[in-house]
Amino acid sequence: MYIMKNDYNHGAHPAILEALMATNDQSFNGYGLDPMCEKAEAEIKKYLDCPNAHVHFLLGGTQTNYTLIAAALKPFQSVICADCGHVNGHETGAVENTGHKLLIQPNTNGKLRAEQIRKEAATYANCDCQEHVTQPKLVYLSFPTAFGTLYSKQELLDIKAVCDEFGLILFIDGARMSYGLAAPENDVTLADLAAIADAFYLGGTKCGTLFGEALVLTKEWLHQDFRAYMKQNGAMLAKGWLLGVQFDTMFKDGLYFDIAKQAIDYAMEIKAAFQAKNVPLYIDSPTNQQFIIADDALMAKLGEKFIYEYIEGLDDGRHVLRFCTSWSTKREEVDALLAVIDTL
Amino acid sequence: MYIMKNDYNHGAHPAILEALMATNDQSFNGYGLDPMCEKAEAEIKKYLDCPNAHVHFLLGGTQTNYTLIAAALKPFQSVICADCGHVNGHETGAVENTGHKLLIQPNTNGKLRAEQIRKEAATYANCDCQEHVTQPKLVYLSFPTAFGTLYSKQELLDIKAVCDEFGLILFIDGARMSYGLAAPENDVTLADLAAIADAFYLGGTKCGTLFGEALVLTKEWLHQDFRAYMKQNGAMLAKGWLLGVQFDTMFKDGLYFDIAKQAIDYAMEIKAAFQAKNVPLYIDSPTNQQFIIADDALMAKLGEKFIYEYIEGLDDGRHVLRFCTSWSTKREEVDALLAVIDTL
Amino acid sequence: MYIMKNDYNHGAHPAILEALMATNDQSFNGYGLDPMCEKAEAEIKKYLDCPNAHVHFLLGGTQTNYTLIAAALKPFQSVICADCGHVNGHETGAVENTGHKLLIQPNTNGKLRAEQIRKEAATYANCDCQEHVTQPKLVYLSFPTAFGTLYSKQELLDIKAVCDEFGLILFIDGARMSYGLAAPENDVTLADLAAIADAFYLGGTKCGTLFGEALVLTKEWLHQDFRAYMKQNGAMLAKGWLLGVQFDTMFKDGLYFDIAKQAIDYAMEIKAAFQAKNVPLYIDSPTNQQFIIADDALMAKLGEKFIYEYIEGLDDGRHVLRFCTSWSTKREEVDALLAVIDTL
Amino acid sequence: MYIMKNDYNHGAHPAILEALMATNDQSFNGYGLDPMCEKAEAEIKKYLDCPNAHVHFLLGGTQTNYTLIAAALKPFQSVICADCGHVNGHETGAVENTGHKLLIQPNTNGKLRAEQIRKEAATYANCDCQEHVTQPKLVYLSFPTAFGTLYSKQELLDIKAVCDEFGLILFIDGARMSYGLAAPENDVTLADLAAIADAFYLGGTKCGTLFGEALVLTKEWLHQDFRAYMKQNGAMLAKGWLLGVQFDTMFKDGLYFDIAKQAIDYAMEIKAAFQAKNVPLYIDSPTNQQFIIADDALMAKLGEKFIYEYIEGLDDGRHVLRFCTSWSTKREEVDALLAVIDTL
Repeated sequence: MYIMKNDYNHGAHPAILEALMATNDQSFNGYGLDPMCEKAEAEIKKYLDCPNAHVHFLLGGTQTNYTLIAAALKPFQSVICADCGHVNGHETGAVENTGHKLLIQPNTNGKLRAEQIRKEAATYANCDCQEHVTQPKLVYLSFPTAFGTLYSKQELLDIKAVCDEFGLILFIDGARMSYGLAAPENDVTLADLAAIADAFYLGGTKCGTLFGEALVLTKEWLHQDFRAYMKQNGAMLAKGWLLGVQFDTMFKDGLYFDIAKQAIDYAMEIKAAFQAKNVPLYIDSPTNQQFIIADDALMAKLGEKFIYEYIEGLDDGRHVLRFCTSWSTKREEVDALLAVIDTL
Repeated sequence: MYIMKNDYNHGAHPAILEALMATNDQSFNGYGLDPMCEKAEAEIKKYLDCPNAHVHFLLGGTQTNYTLIAAALKPFQSVICADCGHVNGHETGAVENTGHKLLIQPNTNGKLRAEQIRKEAATYANCDCQEHVTQPKLVYLSFPTAFGTLYSKQELLDIKAVCDEFGLILFIDGARMSYGLAAPENDVTLADLAAIADAFYLGGTKCGTLFGEALVLTKEWLHQDFRAYMKQNGAMLAKGWLLGVQFDTMFKDGLYFDIAKQAIDYAMEIKAAFQAKNVPLYIDSPTNQQFIIADDALMAKLGEKFIYEYIEGLDDGRHVLRFCTSWSTKREEVDALLAVIDTL
Repeated sequence: MYIMKNDYNHGAHPAILEALMATNDQSFNGYGLDPMCEKAEAEIKKYLDCPNAHVHFLLGGTQTNYTLIAAALKPFQSVICADCGHVNGHETGAVENTGHKLLIQPNTNGKLRAEQIRKEAATYANCDCQEHVTQPKLVYLSFPTAFGTLYSKQELLDIKAVCDEFGLILFIDGARMSYGLAAPENDVTLADLAAIADAFYLGGTKCGTLFGEALVLTKEWLHQDFRAYMKQNGAMLAKGWLLGVQFDTMFKDGLYFDIAKQAIDYAMEIKAAFQAKNVPLYIDSPTNQQFIIADDALMAKLGEKFIYEYIEGLDDGRHVLRFCTSWSTKREEVDALLAVIDTL
Repeated sequence: MYIMKNDYNHGAHPAILEALMATNDQSFNGYGLDPMCEKAEAEIKKYLDCPNAHVHFLLGGTQTNYTLIAAALKPFQSVICADCGHVNGHETGAVENTGHKLLIQPNTNGKLRAEQIRKEAATYANCDCQEHVTQPKLVYLSFPTAFGTLYSKQELLDIKAVCDEFGLILFIDGARMSYGLAAPENDVTLADLAAIADAFYLGGTKCGTLFGEALVLTKEWLHQDFRAYMKQNGAMLAKGWLLGVQFDTMFKDGLYFDIAKQAIDYAMEIKAAFQAKNVPLYIDSPTNQQFIIADDALMAKLGEKFIYEYIEGLDDGRHVLRFCTSWSTKREEVDALLAVIDTL
């Protein structure tokens, strides 16, 4: 069986393990205050064109999301997010557990629209009893989204304009960032994100490291006490240099981008193969997650050799399935899937 | 100007103040452990046919809602509620502030449907990765709803059946309970509520007391530590007997029901008058809140003498307005409104 | 039996009930946005000499304490308080329930010393791993303290100096404020408190109202979103004017001060009587709470006619008992106690 | 410079990295539901003699502490711990951030005494106003303690007896567990801990893994929803098998115990050397942390070649310093330190 259900089913790119081996006999200061974290931060900042940015290394996505939100918001403030946002449906209410409400919006191709954000913010701004409702204060986006889609640079600028108008904080979950950046249709750079977002992260777990996310804070006020929030929320690794070593390996020579490119190429081959056989796409994703609609027969056929992710059942009895490629996907896995599709 | 925007713009029924005067020179034990609270609990329990029920007296609705929810749920559990529920849009995220997520459902005439609850509960029950989502564990209803509508006894029994099937806690916000009970179309009794709900409350603030809500807990496990939750959440009045005195006054001779009956009669006169002039209702409410749809001219006309509650603007430019009656509404206020309507 | 165990065992001063009666037939806007709250705020501010102060009316002491602290602190910040502080031992962990740690100090005559505050703040300031500990940010005092003692003006100025040096917020719990102000040895005025503290409150519950506390915020940043915190924490009374009416009654003609004066006079008579009979004081309190040390025989004797508060047992088998006077204490109660003491 | 300030300044034992390399090309199911975690759990359980125990793998100590406490306690319940407990002074108030109060006790040689626990529990049990205080419900111990000391089996049994008497949960922080088990004076086994504690953990971070802690839950009710608490608190690693691989490596052949033994031997050599030169110990630690009292001259001398942990300054001007050995300590480091001590 080939596992194509997600993009976190293998350890790490070999270069990561080599780097960990190479530094294993050295002694380091703890809690992320070490030369490797400094080096990794510097390597990442080369892409940002944002001298005042700070980079913190956390252990996972859920943790990064709720820790940032806990640090950014006051108790009466809330988060605008799409219904398909990871913070809404996949984190066991971690954001609410920190005390903050989510103002959930229906998604459009996985995305929030600037107009939705404006409406929430304007409703609050015009409310004559503001103290009875939460203040929408932070916008949570994912790049790519839960459905693999991408915001265009213009869409992000439109959202930023609304955020600026209403004083909202813009936070972008980049758990799959490398796949977004590597997509042919993408027109957003890391420097764009640093210019647009108050905070965003470069996922490691799904993008080639053993674990870890690199959170970029472009505003000094967010950075100021952030290490205290990390410690309080269990997000500060004692041996912080392990994250520094991994992200340094990823960014010093562009490995982060190269290995995502291959995953995207594979995903596009798979998408094209499904389309050639008229298998309907649930959504047209330009990144490493591909969503198809399958009837019972197709699902059974695909299930013979592949472990996919079952997303949901449709009212007409058909099924939405996800196939993921990743940095660890092998040519032979893709070929095996293409061979099955070819028989349809 | 006549204030008809809400049902909490006057102090208390005169009998309440008289009772407070009559007991003002007595000395009482604090924190609700006094004969007046015992007496009030006993008077309320006469209506419940539920010997094991316990009654706690809290100070307001928001406080009662989040304190009960904080006491009833574990951190990973969540609340199923309607989008128009008070806990969702009028309490500054108080429930989320206690750490719990709301699973918000579109309302039907202000109500949750049993089928919506079943779907949420079943989705969780059938989920193969339950630990990634919150567990729906408590159903929050309002009786009457935010739009003044009422659940029938059968609707409540259907909801209870779903709750029993999935082990859900049923909590009913009764901030306007007396108006629901007094409505001609109502077929639910307090004994029904005690048999159906795990917790519900008898609103005082909107129903004739100065302040206070009487929370009925029909399950021993909810009662057991509830006073600790009250204290921790600022919901335990030092001079608790003030609440006992008020609720005793309300329930010992049925005053609670009588004064609501008058409010309902007035509301029905107002509704009939609007309907006679073909003013569209936003929703057909059988209780003390009446919602009409008004164009600019009608809104201006009504605004000359009356302070109503502005609910929202419709896409067609018209407006939803609320007129409330209450235990304190006077004949002359109703007549004044009827007179204006008559000129339309 | 005479109840002298606490200062909240009677309803309200008659003038309070009269004022509630007088306004009971009027209609008011809700949630504290009404002329009575404005009037009460203005009457209180006459004593403050602090034009930029704001006054908010909450329902009880525990609620006021945790709501102010929740509004003032970020999640990684903590509270410096005495071990006998109400927030530590009498509020079911309400402050911790909002997420904040208490840094508890041994008291000296019920009081925190400036030096203790300095030590905590300096330890943090000099810590080279600040992110591993909470940041001491708010100092919680009580005036009078839990043992009835008073900070002198100089003690408060010394504490303020430390707060200013380290950027700490100074918050004073004034649940028994009137008794402190009325004590002959007191040299602190409300204007002093407004000049010294960032927030303090004028207790109503224990000082003559039915319920309610008047929280004075002398800093604009604390005031700015405070109503949202009140609503979120169940501390915003729907019929807010009930608090306005009560505090207006208390402050417009100095009633707040007058009725406390009498309670203090009674307390001093009681203290003197005990001392004349060589009954040891547990602490020498200048206010309405008197603490004596009694052996079994004395405790039994006093218990024949009086309900006192049992504070704690001493290692030598004797007992600490509290006798309270209040605005509601009657001459005959005092005389009865003096008569018993006289027989010792 | 030799770093001897802590026991987490090196990556991992080589066998750990080899095991990660060996499994890096395999594909695994996520979130700890994989054969490696199952294997590791089975290997650990071989030592427990507790068939119903469950093992969960978390990422770090702070996270494990607050997640377990959040899962074990209701909002009004609190934790009894020593003042030197990690949860009190080194976790940025993480426990309070989950809403729970710590009832802090002075330590005796780093330890809580059964009698202290009994006193807290009995005070609550005998309190006639329990709802005004938190309920002591969980006892937090560390084995070894923050000062490297160990509870004897009898001490643990005495504590368990109190816990059983008052219905308290016993939780043991084992961040340095291997060093405790390897100490010559230790008489406690893992099977003893499984029989005595409701929850305890086997530290990985400080004991030879890259990161990770293995939490043993001996009660089914604690285990039941624990994965939801892990996810909600950012403590569930996406690639959970990385922890399984590491702990399997540690426990399948006893590596966990062997490498700690060496660290203890080194520590005892260092202690003996200091004692031979009459350098006073701050505390007599039988494990890998050694605490000495140094004057300025000695501190300077030691600081020439060694990075130690500065614990605190004493009133007499001398200093408490910590030297740690660990699984990664080399013979040459120890020899270098012994050589310096020899010159004293």
